[in-house]
Amino acid sequence: MKKIINDPNEVVQDMAAGLIAAHPDELQQLPGTTVIAKSNAPIKNKVAIVSGGGSGHEPAHAGYVGKGMLDAAVAGEVFTSPTPDQIFEAIKAVDGGAGVCLVIKNYTGDVLNFEMAAELAEAEGIDVEKVVVNDDVAVDEESSRRGIAGTVLVHKVAGAKAEQGGTLKEVKAAAEKVVENVRSMGMALTPCTVPAAGTPSFQLGENEMEIGIGIHGESGIERKSITTADDIAKELTDRILDDFDFTGGDVAVMINGLGSTPEMELYIVNKQVQAILAEKGITVYTTFVGEYMTSLEMTGCSVTLLKLDDELKTLLNEPSQAPAFRS
Amino acid sequence: MKKIINDPNEVVQDMAAGLIAAHPDELQQLPGTTVIAKSNAPIKNKVAIVSGGGSGHEPAHAGYVGKGMLDAAVAGEVFTSPTPDQIFEAIKAVDGGAGVCLVIKNYTGDVLNFEMAAELAEAEGIDVEKVVVNDDVAVDEESSRRGIAGTVLVHKVAGAKAEQGGTLKEVKAAAEKVVENVRSMGMALTPCTVPAAGTPSFQLGENEMEIGIGIHGESGIERKSITTADDIAKELTDRILDDFDFTGGDVAVMINGLGSTPEMELYIVNKQVQAILAEKGITVYTTFVGEYMTSLEMTGCSVTLLKLDDELKTLLNEPSQAPAFRS
Repeated sequence: MKKIINDPNEVVQDMAAGLIAAHPDELQQLPGTTVIAKSNAPIKNKVAIVSGGGSGHEPAHAGYVGKGMLDAAVAGEVFTSPTPDQIFEAIKAVDGGAGVCLVIKNYTGDVLNFEMAAELAEAEGIDVEKVVVNDDVAVDEESSRRGIAGTVLVHKVAGAKAEQGGTLKEVKAAAEKVVENVRSMGMALTPCTVPAAGTPSFQLGENEMEIGIGIHGESGIERKSITTADDIAKELTDRILDDFDFTGGDVAVMINGLGSTPEMELYIVNKQVQAILAEKGITVYTTFVGEYMTSLEMTGCSVTLLKLDDELKTLLNEPSQAPAFRS
Repeated sequence: MKKIINDPNEVVQDMAAGLIAAHPDELQQLPGTTVIAKSNAPIKNKVAIVSGGGSGHEPAHAGYVGKGMLDAAVAGEVFTSPTPDQIFEAIKAVDGGAGVCLVIKNYTGDVLNFEMAAELAEAEGIDVEKVVVNDDVAVDEESSRRGIAGTVLVHKVAGAKAEQGGTLKEVKAAAEKVVENVRSMGMALTPCTVPAAGTPSFQLGENEMEIGIGIHGESGIERKSITTADDIAKELTDRILDDFDFTGGDVAVMINGLGSTPEMELYIVNKQVQAILAEKGITVYTTFVGEYMTSLEMTGCSVTLLKLDDELKTLLNEPSQAPAFRS
């Protein structure tokens, strides 16, 4: 295991401290937790957005804490859901009286723990709504679909709606509109190693890649020989287009690196994705290329498409001051 | 070689096309070149900033083209200096009559080719100034020091000065102030593979790291067993502090990932760098953590410190609309 870390069991605490040290004016770590919140939270009468999940997906989620996106992110251990009590602390810290919208990636542990935290908060009189993101079309059954890079667009839209003064119900509705209209699909060339485990969670042959892999290395739909960037981009994009009708509206495109893929390669993938969309008559409104939802040092990428209406366009365009998503 | 590419000899062209496809309104590719320029170039009476170098360091340099930073970036083949004629095309395309400042990383090929391009431009009546960045303290001899991540801060400051209406001499002076006050040092855990070569340019043992390595894999100052993030951060920071007196002024800190290092680990390094600076009584004015100057998929990081005066603080704070450096 080649990593730049100290104690493998302290990576999340060390990371949180380093993140706060980088952004001391904008971010705070809630004492005794690995919750990262805006330093000026709670903001009176603004709906607060809270997300989180296992660590190892940086900049998700703490990098998205900032004006215009999240009010707090709860960092679990690496690839492990945060506990309900930590999520509850986050909710309490950011509620400004207008309620809190939880953005949850669709994993059993996350859903359970965020739900338990929501119940604890509601028992204290805080209004809470939940939005579950399940954009990964590699899984056939919609209810089992994992939340991956599309989650970042949910953060952006929910955060912007809250910043505009939307009510809790309006913020939830905007976030759910993204969930309904966003689809993603990923692939990997190499596995990654959870620091406390010390060995890769799976193996891929020297010439192998896995299509449809999850952001924790969950099984994909096919393991096969590495092919060209154009073929990979086509396979991911076709699967997304087969799943949902993206015609008749503009789309946002996100080409997301999983950790070790050079930005050069993400742009090469983007070239082909855009060509496919152009051929299908699908108009691209905006494009994001970079590392938005990673899997430690996994090599690979995902493609995300979000179908836009006027409201979503406006919300995507609103400013964000989050360290990992400035616009 | 596990890469998401098409023809290994076309990666730069493919990347450029993908970059333009992602930012069609802000960027343009000059026909017949791999020069990326602002779509609204030239801007009349504004000093233009041009940088570039071998590809493989993305987002450097094309990701820094945008209002407030570069007017154009010239992308050579991977780890290979761009040719004088390409640089000349960039200069001609962005000169708005106020002259062009070239920001050059201190490598023999880059310096020679940018100088030749400058001569060609001057022969056509374009005022050109050159600034050579040599921030890598891993090399003892100052004149041989390589330009690494500190170059991005030169882009930022020069771009802001030009945006403020600075003359060519003023822009050059601001850029040179950064060069005089910036120092960096890097390390790597793994090598990287140039696509057209197909095999790693060097080897590191399973438990080895190299301190002081260059961004093309140039030899560092020591190869030894991997140690903790804290020790690595201390070794890099101490070497920088030994080289230049950072006391008595605020500093900007950049913790830069070389390509495959998870952001989590960069923040862990940042934690220790900030602790060392605090202990020395050096005040951190602003911190950048991320991938700014990479080496394809090399695993490793660099630490950069820039001593600031009031002018540099103001210029760092000016807005930038470059895709890879929004502020």
